[in-house]
Amino acid sequence: MTLTEEGRNRVAIEGVRPEIDCGRFAIKRVTGDVVEVEADVFADGHDGIRCRVLYRHESEPEWREALMEALGNDRWRGVFPVSVLGRYRYTVEGWVDRFLTWRGDLRKRIAAGQDVRVEALAGAELVEEAAGRAEGADRDRLMEWAAILRAEAAAEERNAPALDEELAEVVSRYPDRRLATRYGKELAVVVDAERARFSAWYEVFPRSCAREAGKHGTLRDCEGWLPYIAYMGFDVLYLPPIHPIGRTFRKGRNNAVTAEPGDPGSPWAIGAEEGGHKSVHPELGTLEDFRHLVEAARSYGIEMALDIALQCTPDHPYVREHPEWFRKRVDGTIRYAENPPKKYQDIYPIDFESENREELWEELKSIFLFWTGQGVRIFRVDNPHTKAFPFWEWAITGIKEQYPDVLFLSEAFTRPKVMARLAKVGFSQSYTYFTWRNTKEELTQYFEQLRETELREYLRPNLWPNTPDILPEFLQAGGRPAFLIRLALAATLGASYGIYGPAYELCENTPREAGSEEYLHSEKYEIKQRDLNSEWSLKEFIARVNRIRKENAALQSDEGLHFHATDNPLLVCYSKARRGGADAVVVVVNLDPFHTQRGWVTLELERLGLEEGVPFQAHDLLSGARYLWQGRRSFVEMSPESTPVHILRFRKRVRTEKDFDYYL
Amino acid sequence: MTLTEEGRNRVAIEGVRPEIDCGRFAIKRVTGDVVEVEADVFADGHDGIRCRVLYRHESEPEWREALMEALGNDRWRGVFPVSVLGRYRYTVEGWVDRFLTWRGDLRKRIAAGQDVRVEALAGAELVEEAAGRAEGADRDRLMEWAAILRAEAAAEERNAPALDEELAEVVSRYPDRRLATRYGKELAVVVDAERARFSAWYEVFPRSCAREAGKHGTLRDCEGWLPYIAYMGFDVLYLPPIHPIGRTFRKGRNNAVTAEPGDPGSPWAIGAEEGGHKSVHPELGTLEDFRHLVEAARSYGIEMALDIALQCTPDHPYVREHPEWFRKRVDGTIRYAENPPKKYQDIYPIDFESENREELWEELKSIFLFWTGQGVRIFRVDNPHTKAFPFWEWAITGIKEQYPDVLFLSEAFTRPKVMARLAKVGFSQSYTYFTWRNTKEELTQYFEQLRETELREYLRPNLWPNTPDILPEFLQAGGRPAFLIRLALAATLGASYGIYGPAYELCENTPREAGSEEYLHSEKYEIKQRDLNSEWSLKEFIARVNRIRKENAALQSDEGLHFHATDNPLLVCYSKARRGGADAVVVVVNLDPFHTQRGWVTLELERLGLEEGVPFQAHDLLSGARYLWQGRRSFVEMSPESTPVHILRFRKRVRTEKDFDYYL
Repeated sequence: MTLTEEGRNRVAIEGVRPEIDCGRFAIKRVTGDVVEVEADVFADGHDGIRCRVLYRHESEPEWREALMEALGNDRWRGVFPVSVLGRYRYTVEGWVDRFLTWRGDLRKRIAAGQDVRVEALAGAELVEEAAGRAEGADRDRLMEWAAILRAEAAAEERNAPALDEELAEVVSRYPDRRLATRYGKELAVVVDAERARFSAWYEVFPRSCAREAGKHGTLRDCEGWLPYIAYMGFDVLYLPPIHPIGRTFRKGRNNAVTAEPGDPGSPWAIGAEEGGHKSVHPELGTLEDFRHLVEAARSYGIEMALDIALQCTPDHPYVREHPEWFRKRVDGTIRYAENPPKKYQDIYPIDFESENREELWEELKSIFLFWTGQGVRIFRVDNPHTKAFPFWEWAITGIKEQYPDVLFLSEAFTRPKVMARLAKVGFSQSYTYFTWRNTKEELTQYFEQLRETELREYLRPNLWPNTPDILPEFLQAGGRPAFLIRLALAATLGASYGIYGPAYELCENTPREAGSEEYLHSEKYEIKQRDLNSEWSLKEFIARVNRIRKENAALQSDEGLHFHATDNPLLVCYSKARRGGADAVVVVVNLDPFHTQRGWVTLELERLGLEEGVPFQAHDLLSGARYLWQGRRSFVEMSPESTPVHILRFRKRVRTEKDFDYYL
Repeated sequence: MTLTEEGRNRVAIEGVRPEIDCGRFAIKRVTGDVVEVEADVFADGHDGIRCRVLYRHESEPEWREALMEALGNDRWRGVFPVSVLGRYRYTVEGWVDRFLTWRGDLRKRIAAGQDVRVEALAGAELVEEAAGRAEGADRDRLMEWAAILRAEAAAEERNAPALDEELAEVVSRYPDRRLATRYGKELAVVVDAERARFSAWYEVFPRSCAREAGKHGTLRDCEGWLPYIAYMGFDVLYLPPIHPIGRTFRKGRNNAVTAEPGDPGSPWAIGAEEGGHKSVHPELGTLEDFRHLVEAARSYGIEMALDIALQCTPDHPYVREHPEWFRKRVDGTIRYAENPPKKYQDIYPIDFESENREELWEELKSIFLFWTGQGVRIFRVDNPHTKAFPFWEWAITGIKEQYPDVLFLSEAFTRPKVMARLAKVGFSQSYTYFTWRNTKEELTQYFEQLRETELREYLRPNLWPNTPDILPEFLQAGGRPAFLIRLALAATLGASYGIYGPAYELCENTPREAGSEEYLHSEKYEIKQRDLNSEWSLKEFIARVNRIRKENAALQSDEGLHFHATDNPLLVCYSKARRGGADAVVVVVNLDPFHTQRGWVTLELERLGLEEGVPFQAHDLLSGARYLWQGRRSFVEMSPESTPVHILRFRKRVRTEKDFDYYL
């Protein structure tokens, strides 16, 4: 081991948080957020130390600095704001501060009645050194102060200015950092558009948007749905792939191995003679129609999300032009997708290890850039977990360098570490296991894991109670109340959530067969025509829930989620609040779609900014009802049909006799 | 972001443990240990993957490999042995194994009754590729197998050998690792001598070893104590500094500011005209005497530990020769040690930030090397937390490169993170807060923290119930039973422990004043003469406890410590056991030195290798008593005078009628 120059840097910096995989991956924030950085910072001996967070947007050459404050046990915390899209860097610097040591010691010496004249002289030297690093008025003040200290040193008795708080503050601005320790890593923050944190998604098949039954819907038809979608309060409109659909091995209705004439095929079977991933399916319309839809949606405050599924049918132009991008079987044919013993002859997976990888990867990235050029700012990526992680990291990083406002939603329902990895390599939002988490225990455990582990720093959950692929058992069995319950859970547990509509609001719940999670007559393989004005529709309920989300800041972030105890396992209660309990919203859900449930909820009042001894008014934002509560325990009774959910805000102040002006 | 070659490496490796501060620091083991490495290893998609731990002693150029096995949830574990002193490196490598994928898929295809002839051909290619990487007999067998597969591919029907386990095993030895992912860091293990893990220390002032009262003891006198120390079963003899003691500002008895004539001064006031850190105090003897003592001790199985305190009196040769190694006050004098308002004018601390740092550091390191040259293999370092961490890291690493069997004990009683840092930078063992942990809750909490956090990988506790500086309140108040209790706790909670004797075995417990932890008539400032054969002496008890330690492997490591419940807060119960409960020892201690305590102990039998339904014999190794117990709960009654402690081993098998040979 060699004797390096850093050997004189006595401060140690450890345990910096947040830090993902030793700084290998970035944490995520949105514009307007702050980043709280903590670290263990300490030195040998008893010297005073100081430390700062250094941070900068990657476009800035110079570090900015934020003071860190001591939390005790050698832990320090500093905070910095992120206001610009893109990447920030941050690190920590700490140093032994001899002035601080001097000042602390001096206080003890004075308290012990010691003669401090020689110490005043030592202080004068330190203040003069600080003056040498200062400029302007500060410099003058420091020099004056040093002179006072020198006078004290020469005087008969000490006097007060040596410990002057304000002057100490001036000195602290000009520390001697020659022997400062810089934390070895520059950590990264990806700063996304606000929609990455807070979004309500609505998935619709545009081909089912036609006004007339039996007709293939178009992108223009889809535009006609915008008022309906906006009325319900969604702000992301997500379309399954809109590309030409292959004909070879096309699947028929209900996933039949052979398509009948007229069967439209699955939108995820991408590529035909009309084109591939950069083309629009002719029956949906043109690129111009698409751009028109994007703009029209935006005028409703709705952002378009496009589904990108990196796979090809045998008819895709890539197959002809770049057979080397696909794996071969021993007989020389291209390998179709398999999950043995299942075979998907209509799909060719892409070989991410291809020898011609560079060209392949560039082409795949260019698909996203093509659609970015058409105005798309959100991509929902199909099955990203079956494509190489390094590809995603490279592609997403590259695309975001050009378009830092672009978001990517990872549609991965797979093993926990694979899902986390996709979030780490760059996906802005992630599908979750919420789809299958129904009981109080399941929900509590899962959401505590998402919020109380490092996952919170980089994985943003997007909760889907259904998708075109997944009609969960709970919805199959529980009827309309189940749809109310699951929507309320998704919309309040998650700052981001989405539904596959109109199947959702119309409570479609017939599976292909018992034990299956597939929809009967799945829209993946056929065109639908529905009555959006059905009396069954949940559209009013959804509109109300989305309005509550927009009016309550606490529901726009996943940060402040906390579960409160209930004495009935079929009642779940949780709150979302900002720092210090501000703007708290409490949600109580009857998880039983069949029966009225009653029970006691025990609220942790301190998380809600409430006091134990004072009554408060609970206002149900869904029903408008108001309840007078006091203390931690409150009784609720909830019917699955009429009140499956309370979304409560509290008015802390209830009027009392003291409000009369003649009181007293 | 550029498109790098690693982009084809699809396997991700995360969460490698153990790993200290992202690999910045080494973990610690002793020769004969194994290192268990865990990691999350996974790839996109459904391919089979394999992974291995790579490891090597730093003296070896080539990696060795250990297979990792899947633990579920993408977690893998591998184990490697460390048999040679010094440093090992380890890392993890994982790769997509196409043969594994092929074989898994084939099994499913066959189960589904599919035609697998084309798959047999694909398998033949993979086996031929493996053969290309193999040699000798393996190569021949693989080629034969490939031929069989090719025949199958051409045949009418599949047959069994395609899934042959043994051949799969041969293939697995020759994987295609061209696209393997290597974990980015090479982590380090420091492998120490076994004594780093298991040691019993005895601290004695050699100047108090004289046979005649009133005489200054010598190193030769100290040799006369070896039989006594060996009888008690200690294997490390630790001497306070043996260097010339300064005269300027020498402290008198009871730390008086002025010494009286004849006062010997503190051994930690190092340096006089007779020499400094590389000299022996003339009244103790010569360097030759010291070497003789080292050898004599070794003949008793006792290793010498020398105290190194890097500080100087004003009389130390360094002060004259290298005034630049010390801080100056503004008046140009050298700064003495202070902890304001306290002043230690007899001590000059060393300035580790000195401009002449290189020369200073080399000289300080050479102190250790000097004593290593005299046969010392263990250093107890005084107050390392007041010296720069980078110095320790550089010095210890350098010394251990030359002498990998040298051990360093950190005498730091300071804040938790500073203590941990000293262990990280290289100290082999550490003083702990055990000295002040007395209640069941304190002990449980503290030892669980030491064992169940990352600390266990690098901080080896050495437990001291007393030191020349610290006579804890518990010993002051609790009389002889307190000494029994604290010794038993130290010796069984810690694989390494030590006492400051003979103050300990003679139960000296008078503080300098009420509320002080200093000894009255502290041996730090005067020479003692004691009666080692006092009837008060705990020497027999200590000898018994140390014998039990030597006879019970579980007590020789801190690994298997576990606390068991008791229903009396004054009774603490814990076990130490090897893997799977082997060689379990259960310790029950009455923490109350004043009263008999009774209560129920609830043993977690599965940790002790015991079964619920079978009676077992509990054998108290201390008293020799035997108890017949059954089930989890057992009653104990413990008197502070006669049975403050049980150290139990269990005989699982109790004789029954079935042991008669005429049974049945």
